[in-house]
Amino acid sequence: MTSSSKLVSQGTITTPRGFLAGVTYAGIKKPDVDALDLGILYSEVPCVAAGVFTTNRIKAAPVILCQRHLENNKAQAIVVNSGCANACTGEEGLADAEEVAAITAKKLGLPPREVLVASTGVIGTPLPMGLIRSSIEKIIVSRENGHDLAKAITTTDRFPKETAVQVVLGHREDEIAIGGIAKGSGMIHPDLATFLCFLTTDAAVEPGFLKGALRKAADISFNMITIDGDTSPNDSVIILANGLAGNEMIESGSPGAAEFEEALETACLSLAKSIARDGEGATKLIEVTVEGALTISDARQGARVVSGSSLVKAAVHGSDPNWGRIIAAMGRSGTEMVESKTDLYIDNLCVMKAGRPHPFDRAQAKSVLDKAEVPIRICLNLGDATATAWGCDLSEEYVTINSEYTT
Amino acid sequence: MTSSSKLVSQGTITTPRGFLAGVTYAGIKKPDVDALDLGILYSEVPCVAAGVFTTNRIKAAPVILCQRHLENNKAQAIVVNSGCANACTGEEGLADAEEVAAITAKKLGLPPREVLVASTGVIGTPLPMGLIRSSIEKIIVSRENGHDLAKAITTTDRFPKETAVQVVLGHREDEIAIGGIAKGSGMIHPDLATFLCFLTTDAAVEPGFLKGALRKAADISFNMITIDGDTSPNDSVIILANGLAGNEMIESGSPGAAEFEEALETACLSLAKSIARDGEGATKLIEVTVEGALTISDARQGARVVSGSSLVKAAVHGSDPNWGRIIAAMGRSGTEMVESKTDLYIDNLCVMKAGRPHPFDRAQAKSVLDKAEVPIRICLNLGDATATAWGCDLSEEYVTINSEYTT
Repeated sequence: MTSSSKLVSQGTITTPRGFLAGVTYAGIKKPDVDALDLGILYSEVPCVAAGVFTTNRIKAAPVILCQRHLENNKAQAIVVNSGCANACTGEEGLADAEEVAAITAKKLGLPPREVLVASTGVIGTPLPMGLIRSSIEKIIVSRENGHDLAKAITTTDRFPKETAVQVVLGHREDEIAIGGIAKGSGMIHPDLATFLCFLTTDAAVEPGFLKGALRKAADISFNMITIDGDTSPNDSVIILANGLAGNEMIESGSPGAAEFEEALETACLSLAKSIARDGEGATKLIEVTVEGALTISDARQGARVVSGSSLVKAAVHGSDPNWGRIIAAMGRSGTEMVESKTDLYIDNLCVMKAGRPHPFDRAQAKSVLDKAEVPIRICLNLGDATATAWGCDLSEEYVTINSEYTT
Repeated sequence: MTSSSKLVSQGTITTPRGFLAGVTYAGIKKPDVDALDLGILYSEVPCVAAGVFTTNRIKAAPVILCQRHLENNKAQAIVVNSGCANACTGEEGLADAEEVAAITAKKLGLPPREVLVASTGVIGTPLPMGLIRSSIEKIIVSRENGHDLAKAITTTDRFPKETAVQVVLGHREDEIAIGGIAKGSGMIHPDLATFLCFLTTDAAVEPGFLKGALRKAADISFNMITIDGDTSPNDSVIILANGLAGNEMIESGSPGAAEFEEALETACLSLAKSIARDGEGATKLIEVTVEGALTISDARQGARVVSGSSLVKAAVHGSDPNWGRIIAAMGRSGTEMVESKTDLYIDNLCVMKAGRPHPFDRAQAKSVLDKAEVPIRICLNLGDATATAWGCDLSEEYVTINSEYTT
């Protein structure tokens, strides 16, 4: 983050001007426990909107609906539930998603097309429409409920993920804010995984530029985190820009465009790292940087494969300096590399130099691996491209959580 | 397996005529425990030989040496150690592998080029040459030691993998045998993973045909098993054919060629399933068949991705009929599919029909998932291509094993 953009302490999705949130307990997630599982994000004025969605061939009904509703790049609200993904539910699932949008639109006095829908949870079961119909009515939106909306979208997450960034655009003293919430945990993987992320900004932004900026920010953040290699039919990143900051329109090449992109990247990176840190059962954040690759796609691919390797993740979990697993994962990533040119570092500790074991103090390596954040650096010494990916360690608890999810 | 080839009860790598094995405790694997960790496979006469090796960019020294020694398609012995992979060890590692071949050749009275070398174990530490030099001398080869050689190549395997197949070639009453041993466990993945497999046959086989048959058999067996997505620098499948059965030379199009290929596939499938069943911490074998794909590569890719999905593996471990994870994994595999045409079965239980949930008895599903072998079938209903892959469930024990490997 440069000096121009700054993280807002306790910031959330309702930090930018004009955004309200509301939540309720509908009983979708856990019938017998009071758990927030339904919420609405609402802007007081119409927004320019953009989204990035799952690359999975199986697309959940809400994703299909969002893609349709976003064709005109406009939206004013998002309604979201946890506990049921409304995926693999056929035409009925799509009709359910449409009805959820329609009920929410009626409540808010909007055209249904202005409402986006998101769902997360178990695949292959229909939305409990009775519960949803009666619960949407109860939701009251306000400036204070951003934190609760962050809670309502979680499933196996251990903590809600929220962020907000403020930035002064150029020399014009326009201050704008970007807020965001996300849910992640299992199934997190490049190419967008079961994860939802909603972003808001009070900046005025041209639709095409907003879409491009969102895709770029997602590419270096959400697409660079990995928990277990699985992706989901529901993955969605959506941004709403309501223009209430009164800034001059941000568009490609305009003053403030670079600052806006950077602030959006800062917000997305902050949320992405929170997600990686909260991988199911995770105890550590692993940060893998590949340097000196021939191409950026090579660097990205290598960093993602290493941060996603089960053997690397389990070794980090046990603070085991078994660096051969890192280099073996790199070797199978498809990234162009030459063994005899490759150096490997755990934090600042060199463990392999020019393809050969480099003497290191095992006690020191263990103490680095015992930390909450473990940086791994692979220097290919072939070119100038660099990329960073984030993952988490693999613990016994991951297995326990995922063996018992629906039962 | 058709009627012509039959599995040999208690069969192993020394079942075919003229193959001897010997093992010893060198102290490479565990200095303080008597654990077999060094062995030799020897044929009484020169063999036609072929190999298939890792696709990892990082290749261990013994793999580089084998590829050189196999350029003339001949070999008469294999020397193998467990406990140290001799990978990422630079020029010194290659010199060590050459010395291991030379010492073994001298002991057996062979040219060094006739000896192949294999290693498995920790990456990035040099071979303990002192231990190896003094231990090779002690090895005595005999017909009886095939089972011990299977034990000597294991690392975290819970049981040795052995097989033997006999087949009568065509109408000529030539009976030949194929024997094999393998080690697998962690890092098992398509494209050959940390796994070693040695095969022997007393058939006379033309070198080019032998190489092609080995590649075909590996493609539908070892390349279709997956434990955790990682591959290793040491993966090797090697076959030695000594011709002592006295059969007419088997070559492309010759009588007996099809029977030989089928017997080799039977042997490889038997070993591959043993490896999948013994994935680190595994309690169940998962068999994933993709039917009705547009192309065979589509079918293969889909079957491999589903059988390798951490979320699918954890769900099977917990006997959780959370079939959405199967379809989500299929959706991200890159395989061409149409959600509304796809059916999904767990054993014979239909859980999804034409992209929609199909009512099923959860108790029955759980009882299917509780079995030692869990068949999953995905019908894409798009074309005629079919492929099967094998994997194992993901247990807490996998993590425990892999957090503590070198420490």
